[in-house]
Amino acid sequence: MGIKFELFHQEKDTSARLGKLTTRHGEIETPIFMPVGTQATVKSLTPEELKEIGAQIILANTYHLYLRPGSKLIAAAGGLHQFMHWDRPLLTDSGGFQIFSLSELNQITEEGVYFKSHIDGSRHFISPEKSMEIQMELGSDIVMAFDECPPYPSDYNYVDKSLELTLRWAKRSKEAMTAEDQALFGIIQGGIYPELRQKSVEAMVEIGFPGYAIGGLSVGEEKELMYQVLDFTTPLLPTAQPRYLMGVGTPEDLIEGVLRGIDLFDCVMPTRIARHGAVYTSRGRITVRNAEYERDFTPLDEQCNCYVCRNYSRGYIRHLLNRKEILGIRLTTYHNLHFFLALMHQVRLAIKRDQLLEFRKEFYRNYRI
Amino acid sequence: MGIKFELFHQEKDTSARLGKLTTRHGEIETPIFMPVGTQATVKSLTPEELKEIGAQIILANTYHLYLRPGSKLIAAAGGLHQFMHWDRPLLTDSGGFQIFSLSELNQITEEGVYFKSHIDGSRHFISPEKSMEIQMELGSDIVMAFDECPPYPSDYNYVDKSLELTLRWAKRSKEAMTAEDQALFGIIQGGIYPELRQKSVEAMVEIGFPGYAIGGLSVGEEKELMYQVLDFTTPLLPTAQPRYLMGVGTPEDLIEGVLRGIDLFDCVMPTRIARHGAVYTSRGRITVRNAEYERDFTPLDEQCNCYVCRNYSRGYIRHLLNRKEILGIRLTTYHNLHFFLALMHQVRLAIKRDQLLEFRKEFYRNYRI
Repeated sequence: MGIKFELFHQEKDTSARLGKLTTRHGEIETPIFMPVGTQATVKSLTPEELKEIGAQIILANTYHLYLRPGSKLIAAAGGLHQFMHWDRPLLTDSGGFQIFSLSELNQITEEGVYFKSHIDGSRHFISPEKSMEIQMELGSDIVMAFDECPPYPSDYNYVDKSLELTLRWAKRSKEAMTAEDQALFGIIQGGIYPELRQKSVEAMVEIGFPGYAIGGLSVGEEKELMYQVLDFTTPLLPTAQPRYLMGVGTPEDLIEGVLRGIDLFDCVMPTRIARHGAVYTSRGRITVRNAEYERDFTPLDEQCNCYVCRNYSRGYIRHLLNRKEILGIRLTTYHNLHFFLALMHQVRLAIKRDQLLEFRKEFYRNYRI
Repeated sequence: MGIKFELFHQEKDTSARLGKLTTRHGEIETPIFMPVGTQATVKSLTPEELKEIGAQIILANTYHLYLRPGSKLIAAAGGLHQFMHWDRPLLTDSGGFQIFSLSELNQITEEGVYFKSHIDGSRHFISPEKSMEIQMELGSDIVMAFDECPPYPSDYNYVDKSLELTLRWAKRSKEAMTAEDQALFGIIQGGIYPELRQKSVEAMVEIGFPGYAIGGLSVGEEKELMYQVLDFTTPLLPTAQPRYLMGVGTPEDLIEGVLRGIDLFDCVMPTRIARHGAVYTSRGRITVRNAEYERDFTPLDEQCNCYVCRNYSRGYIRHLLNRKEILGIRLTTYHNLHFFLALMHQVRLAIKRDQLLEFRKEFYRNYRI
């Protein structure tokens, strides 16, 4: 199925677990955070920099790459790895989430989705088969099944109906994914409804995938509600396969997710807020472009020893951001991703020692949400 | 005077010369090209990347840094080197050129220049003494005298009068520059008029500076005219001091300038055109964002072995540029500066072998202007 997943350790008092995912492009230690490279680039950084800060796998967006430059062009370039000069594992989403959140939807049918591009209004149709075709052209190591993503909030009956469609699409995705070196993950939907999450898990496991994603979270619901959904959903999932919580989240979400048994995360947050001049520090998030940092010649985070914190001050980075200098965005992006990846490294160490709850306590001693 | 200049070799058949400039921040091989870091950053690149492509000295703009973030703030940060994390030599201009080209001029008096900021319309006054004060706060290794920059074309009488003012300002600049580890260069003006260039050189040399810049060129005149001005100006300059041709130029201008005895160059061209999607190659300049490169999976320049050309294709870089992805600008900027610095490296090797004329011939065999 393209990947191998090994579990090394399961914490005694929590659902946190330590594992290793092996793909044809190398190994991934889990739990892990995946930086997002929407348009075949993790915004502002080179692959070498991503490796320097410990990125083991990155994510790219099928919807964006299908529209521009086109998956056929990327296939002609030798696939996405070759196109973007990234030789480590790559995960692509199915395009579903972006079709439902970015494009102008025309019609959802049994066959697939008709939509207009958010860029030029051009008309497109994507089905499970088409999504698999695109992802095979991209050549990612982990491929996501095509799903419908109902908006939040949606009522029980709508989510139930949508879930059924997603299940039929998951079966078709599996049939259509014929590349032996690409691993297809199923996506659990069901909104905030325990029975629907259970129904989704059972049916997806029956279809059988080498990994399962939890979709439809971090879409506007309260954090506590998201954690509750994880509380009742992850225990239903088989332990032998990796679990991926899609589009989540903040540092606290990562810790809470790992405690509930999640292995993979992705989120645009660290790269997006970096472009708006905000950075994560061991004391919480700060907006370094604010006037209060004008004459602050200390590093972004005194506790951090990344390239940025070793060499640049808040005052300098503020100057760059306010002058709209590209280097400013590079430095905040680099630091934020380093923060997330270093956090996950610490989380893995803590799990190894059965100390993740202590780690969480220690983390919140300084960190203000 | 803060610097030492040694000449190792003078070509037999041309005015090209090989030298070494020593500053408290290290040595510079001449002739050399200086990347421009207007706002305390060479746009999009880190200091480490600049070193990787062979930058030995960079330039920063006094006018911009005086306005934002302010030279006093930079002094408080420990000076410009510390502020921007660059430990090699730095040259700052006097602010004159930008006051005359960017700001809204109010009045030029014997004392100095009254102008309004091009950013917020705030009122400012800069004199030779003020320019020296700012440049001392910045702490650059090479400092430029404050000069008036007449527009092109200007008539003989105007240029003559302006020249006299620039000479009086040069004397005052010299008196005001009291930092022993900063070397002040005088600027030769005189427009396109041989007698005025001669007058300027003689008076500047009489004042006495550890280096001389040729100003007022590459401001709209024909290339041939610029080369003519160099033809009659550089032979008048003392051979023992370095000569800096300000704001010049293209690859061909560098070669022509070196042949006429120039040691230092700076220009925003390679970084500016990079941001517009144009790159230099051994066959000439190409606009890689054009549609013709969409499916071109060869490097920017087949003859180049820089980081960019080793790892990325024209098609990928075009995709990034068209998606306004920062990495696109980083890659074109890196490549263009590498092109300029590698060219100057080749030029120095050619001078060493007394083969610069042959080198020029060979260069133009492929390179189309």
